[in-house]
Amino acid sequence: MSSGEDDLIARYFKPLATDPGALGLTDDAAFLKGGGDDLVVTTDAIVEGVHFLGNDRPDTVAKKALRVNLSDLAAKGATPAGFVLTLALRAADENWLAPFARGLGDDAAAFACPLFGGDTVSTPGPLTISITAFGRVPPGGMVKRTSAQPGDRVIVTGTIGDAALGLALLTGKITLDDATAREALIGRYRVPQPRVGLAKAVRTYARAAMDVSDGLAGDLSKLCAASGVSAVIDADSVPLSVAARSLIAQGKAGLPVLVSGGDDYEILCAMPEDRLDAFTAAAAESGVAVTSVGTIIAGNVAPRWLDAEGREMALPRLSYSHF
Amino acid sequence: MSSGEDDLIARYFKPLATDPGALGLTDDAAFLKGGGDDLVVTTDAIVEGVHFLGNDRPDTVAKKALRVNLSDLAAKGATPAGFVLTLALRAADENWLAPFARGLGDDAAAFACPLFGGDTVSTPGPLTISITAFGRVPPGGMVKRTSAQPGDRVIVTGTIGDAALGLALLTGKITLDDATAREALIGRYRVPQPRVGLAKAVRTYARAAMDVSDGLAGDLSKLCAASGVSAVIDADSVPLSVAARSLIAQGKAGLPVLVSGGDDYEILCAMPEDRLDAFTAAAAESGVAVTSVGTIIAGNVAPRWLDAEGREMALPRLSYSHF
Repeated sequence: MSSGEDDLIARYFKPLATDPGALGLTDDAAFLKGGGDDLVVTTDAIVEGVHFLGNDRPDTVAKKALRVNLSDLAAKGATPAGFVLTLALRAADENWLAPFARGLGDDAAAFACPLFGGDTVSTPGPLTISITAFGRVPPGGMVKRTSAQPGDRVIVTGTIGDAALGLALLTGKITLDDATAREALIGRYRVPQPRVGLAKAVRTYARAAMDVSDGLAGDLSKLCAASGVSAVIDADSVPLSVAARSLIAQGKAGLPVLVSGGDDYEILCAMPEDRLDAFTAAAAESGVAVTSVGTIIAGNVAPRWLDAEGREMALPRLSYSHF
Repeated sequence: MSSGEDDLIARYFKPLATDPGALGLTDDAAFLKGGGDDLVVTTDAIVEGVHFLGNDRPDTVAKKALRVNLSDLAAKGATPAGFVLTLALRAADENWLAPFARGLGDDAAAFACPLFGGDTVSTPGPLTISITAFGRVPPGGMVKRTSAQPGDRVIVTGTIGDAALGLALLTGKITLDDATAREALIGRYRVPQPRVGLAKAVRTYARAAMDVSDGLAGDLSKLCAASGVSAVIDADSVPLSVAARSLIAQGKAGLPVLVSGGDDYEILCAMPEDRLDAFTAAAAESGVAVTSVGTIIAGNVAPRWLDAEGREMALPRLSYSHF
């Protein structure tokens, strides 16, 4: 970027750099205070035309870019500490930067996750936003994918499939007359609700966890494979929103598609049964429902999904793929 | 990326994830162990066609991407702890990924800076590489830009202007018959030598510091402005390589251009005079020369550059700009 553009960008992003360690973005680096905590690190990038559309609102693009990282932190049991941002821009367009920075700043404040720095580079290609986010856990406290054990309950937060339906509505693959339900589903796709408030409960009660970003069925397969276990899922118990149930009732969507869609940004965890009540109570304090959908079992096969009659459910594709 | 491509990428990068906290890249996140140190964070991105050329060797592209971040850490007095990598690729091409991962792995090992994770996304645009690197300093130990004081010596490591000359040779703007000197200058452009070995000495002895990435003159101006001071520089004392001196003698380059060129990746610092001997000795242990080029003075004007006759030197442009 030219120094004029650098100044412009600094002006927009400096208000987000509220931690003393960010040094008001005046330095080449920032520092996160030590202390005994481990620092959890996660990184996710989104590309115009691939992960969002060029005419998507800049404020929602910013929120999604940060929230997909906050979702990872929450699923690892980590309390947000801050993030760094890399922007590859064709030009420093104030009409885009101003709402982008405003959306990002609103979320940085709402989730207590301030900006620590970044880099802005010019590109002839699509707008690309890369965020690396940091969170804190007590020493050794990061919740991994690898530690699920046979007998653990399989727990899911919130509802599954809404974002996939939102995308299907946006792209015209399905229709829905109820405008409120339609907007709610599209909102779930555009602006995920990372379960940041559940971070402490996850690290206190979950044995293994990950966020559901590529479809529940595929993500559960990954968690089971990483832990060297399998699972049996009661498909009927998968938590669905009223709008999703309505679309299923209308024959416009099926459960196999909902559990294979992406962008849920809920938390999937494996938990000993005797911790479930405490976890449910802690989640309720954050206003988030949690649902037990099955059981971890021994074995190396893919998790089995059983319908209400106990028949195995066929899943057309396991998870979202960009290609 | 498709899951096949994800697997391919994981195979190439897993060997770089040598820290236990990286969990072999099997999780959505990684953790850096706590323990009293502050964590210094820096991030830099490079774009094909802007910061490197499409036909540049993938191993040198990888090294440069990591080293520009290591240079920032060193200038902040931070010992490398690790990094995360975001790759935006058009396709997962093994002919590119294999040497890229090899070059990155060589440097991760050489600089004790292992990979902690990352994200790979598909893009229709230019290859874009974003690295966020972490380093450790004792609590409160990060060396800032803002703390230079009148009377401090202005210190520069290594030699200045070689990378700018290397780029001028590469692009045919100048010529040089001496093939060894030519390759040395081009090498300084392609693969910077971050002064990682000086991190401890910088945090022990420097009052303020930054790395020289956008041209010494411009970067000194930034350091002075951030510290609310000015400086007087003895232009003749700026450390130059034999090759650079030879090009000046041939009339092919001038000092004003060398101190305004980019990509030096040396360390610029302000230091009380009575610490200079100890810093010089510590740097010598790493095989790096350090040179005093001037003095910090009170004032809010741009630093003055004086030639051997004490005349003010005109600088055509202060620093490198992408536009």
